[in-house]
Amino acid sequence: MEFVIYSFVQLLLAGFENTRNPYIVEGVYSFAAINMGKVIDTLKSPYEKLLAKTKEMVILGTATGIIHWDMETKMPPKGVGLRSQQLALLSQMSHRLSTDPEIGDLLSKIEKHTDYESLSALQKRNVYLLRKHYDEQTKLPEKLVKETAKQEAIAIDVWKKAKGAKDFSMFKPELEKMFKLRKQAADILMEVKGTASPYDALIDMYEPKMDARTITKIFAELRDGLVLVMEKCRRGSKRLDTSFMNRKVPVEMQEKISKELAEFIGYDIKSPQAGGRIDETEHPFTGGYYDDVRITTHYYENNLASSLFSILHEGGHAIYEQNFKESWMYQPVGSSTSLGFHESQSRFVENMVGRSREFWNYFFPKLQVLTGGIFSNVALDDFVRAINQVKPSKIRVEADEVTYSLHIIIRFEIEQELLAERITVKDLPELWNQKYKDYLGVTIENDSEGVMQDIHWASGAFGYFPTYALGNVYGGQILEAMERELPNWRDKITEGNFQTLKKWLVENVHQQGDLYDPPVLIKRITGEELNVNPFLKYLNKKYSWVYGF
Amino acid sequence: MEFVIYSFVQLLLAGFENTRNPYIVEGVYSFAAINMGKVIDTLKSPYEKLLAKTKEMVILGTATGIIHWDMETKMPPKGVGLRSQQLALLSQMSHRLSTDPEIGDLLSKIEKHTDYESLSALQKRNVYLLRKHYDEQTKLPEKLVKETAKQEAIAIDVWKKAKGAKDFSMFKPELEKMFKLRKQAADILMEVKGTASPYDALIDMYEPKMDARTITKIFAELRDGLVLVMEKCRRGSKRLDTSFMNRKVPVEMQEKISKELAEFIGYDIKSPQAGGRIDETEHPFTGGYYDDVRITTHYYENNLASSLFSILHEGGHAIYEQNFKESWMYQPVGSSTSLGFHESQSRFVENMVGRSREFWNYFFPKLQVLTGGIFSNVALDDFVRAINQVKPSKIRVEADEVTYSLHIIIRFEIEQELLAERITVKDLPELWNQKYKDYLGVTIENDSEGVMQDIHWASGAFGYFPTYALGNVYGGQILEAMERELPNWRDKITEGNFQTLKKWLVENVHQQGDLYDPPVLIKRITGEELNVNPFLKYLNKKYSWVYGF
Repeated sequence: MEFVIYSFVQLLLAGFENTRNPYIVEGVYSFAAINMGKVIDTLKSPYEKLLAKTKEMVILGTATGIIHWDMETKMPPKGVGLRSQQLALLSQMSHRLSTDPEIGDLLSKIEKHTDYESLSALQKRNVYLLRKHYDEQTKLPEKLVKETAKQEAIAIDVWKKAKGAKDFSMFKPELEKMFKLRKQAADILMEVKGTASPYDALIDMYEPKMDARTITKIFAELRDGLVLVMEKCRRGSKRLDTSFMNRKVPVEMQEKISKELAEFIGYDIKSPQAGGRIDETEHPFTGGYYDDVRITTHYYENNLASSLFSILHEGGHAIYEQNFKESWMYQPVGSSTSLGFHESQSRFVENMVGRSREFWNYFFPKLQVLTGGIFSNVALDDFVRAINQVKPSKIRVEADEVTYSLHIIIRFEIEQELLAERITVKDLPELWNQKYKDYLGVTIENDSEGVMQDIHWASGAFGYFPTYALGNVYGGQILEAMERELPNWRDKITEGNFQTLKKWLVENVHQQGDLYDPPVLIKRITGEELNVNPFLKYLNKKYSWVYGF
Repeated sequence: MEFVIYSFVQLLLAGFENTRNPYIVEGVYSFAAINMGKVIDTLKSPYEKLLAKTKEMVILGTATGIIHWDMETKMPPKGVGLRSQQLALLSQMSHRLSTDPEIGDLLSKIEKHTDYESLSALQKRNVYLLRKHYDEQTKLPEKLVKETAKQEAIAIDVWKKAKGAKDFSMFKPELEKMFKLRKQAADILMEVKGTASPYDALIDMYEPKMDARTITKIFAELRDGLVLVMEKCRRGSKRLDTSFMNRKVPVEMQEKISKELAEFIGYDIKSPQAGGRIDETEHPFTGGYYDDVRITTHYYENNLASSLFSILHEGGHAIYEQNFKESWMYQPVGSSTSLGFHESQSRFVENMVGRSREFWNYFFPKLQVLTGGIFSNVALDDFVRAINQVKPSKIRVEADEVTYSLHIIIRFEIEQELLAERITVKDLPELWNQKYKDYLGVTIENDSEGVMQDIHWASGAFGYFPTYALGNVYGGQILEAMERELPNWRDKITEGNFQTLKKWLVENVHQQGDLYDPPVLIKRITGEELNVNPFLKYLNKKYSWVYGF
């Protein structure tokens, strides 16, 4: 019954409290040896100094991640005001670390030095990534960064209210201001990055070296292919019965099932070496780094599928984060190459494995046991068809595997017009509704279920959306490459062996970390340029069975 | 199914992720407005600037607290290496913040300025506390601080091994080095603080303005009084039956009981405004600040008392932390005055209330219901006697209310001899064992159950122990004062009303924050100087009933 105090006058005791855990002691030791002694200045090369600074940035980022996770999962409700202060301070400290002029000096020194060529490819990549990050963080005028942060707060607040009131006219002036600020940033970043357009400069922040021209081509083919699949499903000979999907499954049962799913994909949450855990949040997410990567899900009694597939989706993200090369920890390369690649891994596990007949051939009998008699009168094939239902909808986050990308394509097409200033913010609702009619055949009744459904634009994240659909496209190509090398992967899954497949993913995708930009990485993994054929082929094959076409 | 990434290249997205929660947005906003804009430099007075800097220190400390809490309660085991790095970095950042030369400049400016006298008493106290903290953080040579941190790591590591091997000779050289380093620090701090001895300088860090001379006098009286009570209990007419205390109570039952106890003391863990929560750890602790203060406990099936009283103990700490004046948040005064006062509040709730007949008169019938039939054949008085059993033991953390302080007095007497260099580290085991024989009548078989039982000395925390027993002494005086003003408090507790008592504690103790040093505060609350009579009177009265003397 000792007492740990973190309040003001006891800050000085931190050293004492740290010492409860032997591993922490080790940390304190390295802190003492490396940081306080300024040994950092006696390291041999500028490259080593740069990596030492990177390590600090990464560690601070991961600490902030824990604070975020706690806010979403464990924080007592009253703590929210204090938490906002903590996150603001950590964000400020992170900004200071990553814009430290010494980083710029070190980068210049390394880049211009005659020894640059003697650096390994890995070292050069680290330098490249740090340069990119440093420029993105420092080239925007402080006034613009400040105004954007302020406008972000205002726009999101107003967005929430406007969404509640179903009134776009409330949101419009704030979105206009936000767009103007992001356009200013995009103009500057275009110069810095040398991209072909301001929009490309924004896209590059989320999906490096990807650009609107490439995406336009890819998405046009994707759209046509998806509309065709959708049409075929509609006309297919099979009528799906999904009624049993709403059967009540108690939360405790769903928790047990989640643990089994985690175990299946090798996401360890219970051994003494476990590096993961599962908690509950309204919106499932994954957070963490290497040895501590956590996922969340939600449990709805009458919607078992929701927890099943969010566990598999987030689990796919998690095993990607857990399997970067160990020796790259704290280095820029020890990270995912892009949001699109991250999404490819989550959707691979969720859809390509998790919604396959083979997986359920193995897992459905288990599910039947774990749920008592709830699904005893449901046939395996009916179940697999039900979880693969295609149903055009208005809300992106509720969309199925086929129509999901259409939601994204609509957003991309609109963003492109907006950034090119061929339309303005006032035109958004009409254009949105028209495209939803054209591509998905649904009628948007009000802007809350239309253009105001996502937080992204309010927060200034233009250029973010395309990464979601690119994830599907990458996934298709990765699947095809894997099928060449592991032709019997479906048999393995049927036997309950995910390990073989995972090993392939780890070696070919995860362990590449951020060594290559997405266009290079996809070619290295698959031998082909980015293209939609494998994804469309996969969908056609799967859904011809599901819907009988 | 959005994805939150905290890894390297996505650090720049932090702003986006922050925006999920409207309150965080608020934080980002204030960050944008206050910090990035360097508005801090345009604040009017040096005092305001100083408080702005303090706020950062406090917020960083509370964020570190969450990271600690997570490590003890939720962290996947594999995450421990990364965690040590995070804590080391945060500790380093905290050190940088609190030793920033600008704080020294601001302090000097304020202290020497002719306007100093125009500051309010509260403002002067803030300046005083910051000066004290700043001096403690900056006056020690960096080399000494580094060596101490390093030695702390080593000494604790060796202490663990030596304790396992029951071999003091292994630990001795490391403890000697640690003592030497702390003695050097104490010599310097004695000059800085102007204390009468090096030991006093260390004590003052944990229990401000307390000194060995005062403690010697107090502890001598306390020791004699306690030995007497112990003796009377031994000779008392009542033979206690404690056999039923080992009855198995399932963990789920204990969890329910814990929630009821939390509710009883007004530690809110379930309302939408809750500022607390209960989790499980091997060693119970309290952590947090104002609106987010969390406690932990442990559940042993065959030891219900352990969870009962750790909930009440930690709950006592927690309600103290939750009830500082709201307007003092982020200021030095918005904090406890000392470790001893903190302990007084936890022991007040645990022992003076939680082990009273009145409390169990109210709660025992509830406990009987909550535990099914487990305690249905136990009489109330037998139960109350059993939870108040006095039994001299070798291990401090297992000691009862009467003998606990004797464990502390032994440590204090030894520390005093050591710091005065009348004995050396090699003399510790013999002296320890002799005092345990003399004061508690127990025979120490080996040094692991003797001088090596606590982590404190290994970590360099000399001067910390006395605060535990001072907490009991303060508690006795506070109880006496409260009884004068709330003569019917025992009736209230019998009725299940803790609120009246809590209100008194909040007004008279909690809301005083760190406005006064302990010797002043105890006099303001009770009208009397520090003295052991009330505590001894309270013990004699209670135990005369328990043991029939």
